[in-house]
Amino acid sequence: MPKKNKILLTNDDGIDAPGLYALYLALKDFGEVTVVAPSTEQSAVGHAITLSDPLRVDSHKKDGSFFGYAVNGTPADCVKIACGAILPSTPDMVISGINLGPNTGINTIYSGTVSAATEGSILGIPSFAISLGTFQDPDFRYAAKFGKNLAVKMAGKTLPKGVSLNVNVPACQENEIQGIQITRMSLALYEENFDKRLDPRGRIYYWLTGQRNNFETDLSVDVAALSANRISITPIHYDLTRYDFLKTLDQWHLKQ
Amino acid sequence: MPKKNKILLTNDDGIDAPGLYALYLALKDFGEVTVVAPSTEQSAVGHAITLSDPLRVDSHKKDGSFFGYAVNGTPADCVKIACGAILPSTPDMVISGINLGPNTGINTIYSGTVSAATEGSILGIPSFAISLGTFQDPDFRYAAKFGKNLAVKMAGKTLPKGVSLNVNVPACQENEIQGIQITRMSLALYEENFDKRLDPRGRIYYWLTGQRNNFETDLSVDVAALSANRISITPIHYDLTRYDFLKTLDQWHLKQ
Repeated sequence: MPKKNKILLTNDDGIDAPGLYALYLALKDFGEVTVVAPSTEQSAVGHAITLSDPLRVDSHKKDGSFFGYAVNGTPADCVKIACGAILPSTPDMVISGINLGPNTGINTIYSGTVSAATEGSILGIPSFAISLGTFQDPDFRYAAKFGKNLAVKMAGKTLPKGVSLNVNVPACQENEIQGIQITRMSLALYEENFDKRLDPRGRIYYWLTGQRNNFETDLSVDVAALSANRISITPIHYDLTRYDFLKTLDQWHLKQ
Repeated sequence: MPKKNKILLTNDDGIDAPGLYALYLALKDFGEVTVVAPSTEQSAVGHAITLSDPLRVDSHKKDGSFFGYAVNGTPADCVKIACGAILPSTPDMVISGINLGPNTGINTIYSGTVSAATEGSILGIPSFAISLGTFQDPDFRYAAKFGKNLAVKMAGKTLPKGVSLNVNVPACQENEIQGIQITRMSLALYEENFDKRLDPRGRIYYWLTGQRNNFETDLSVDVAALSANRISITPIHYDLTRYDFLKTLDQWHLKQ
């Protein structure tokens, strides 16, 4: 019998999230899946790690049986501690999701789901993040099936050093999906507002609200592909250097 | 009298951090500085934003006088809410720091200090993050002076869309500084360990520890430049797309 792929599965919606469980069920026939996920929801934690508090790892049950490890940290913490202290050896793959809601455009940089895949790629492990393009009445079944198929495909391929995949699956019916699109991350600015309110004691507080993308229509852009019911796959990296500006900046002749 | 530059000053060490105050004192003669900073330390929060809790903005005093606005959120939250709800108009510049400790190499992606400058660049505002290369006995005076000089210089220059600067200043004496180096972000992996301990009730917990960089010696790399007592300036961006892999990924012929 061939050696099963060892898959580390995590997310940012927390270990009890239905999206994680749907993906777990789809992956477990293909690989040996270990779940190491945040004990609570960690949405929009970005690429955070926990330095100021100790991390705890608790065995987590589902329906009375062992299901995985719950960590009181972020998705990136989960990948770090899984690879550094929980798993007996480095996993063959890190998969993060299925996230409730899309991770496209500039929002990608705030995504805990994506940060877990990035952390996998930092550790040199083939990794992808997968998100479902809706916040309401999610049906994760097709996205889970697609995630499993992608894992199978990735097991026979090589990603360049430092690259992971950011996958967004439309929330439509399976027969409405218009194929797969390899995309770039939209750089369009979001419309954001702060909703100013008064609490019962008369003190002001604010909610961040009204995120709406200034729409790009080119299907080679993640938001547009997803909106056209295509599965969007963006290869991403964590090298923040803007190489094409190095020479110009050097010519600024900055003095001490 | 020429119009003063409107500067938004923030950080991730919190509004009471000495590094922020040192930079404030240096900047206030050059610009009209508004401080909007986290009410508590937010180190290693990465590029996080607060969606699940309301944000509060409190006037913060120093030595009995108004000093700035304290926000119960992350550095990115501070920039968003400053530009979206606190300031009467968009600032001319966003400056984040001075951070206690360097923000170089892969650690840059976990940095709240850097994320504030990134947020500024997302909003189209010239921005930089500035950090001091030590965690112990910090003397922020030279870094503050350099930060002010950089702000003056930047006011007359144009950064490309989406680009901000990540500045790291050596913690040596001013006369030991070996000039300025325009650098790229080191991609070398850190040595990380988890220190496993037992709490007084016999339960296991972990500390993330032992971050040490596998050293790159090329002075064009941020960690190496800083280590050689050079001021490191890295132009960074937030476009995570790995463009050179788009075509290859398209040829994977992924099926639904």
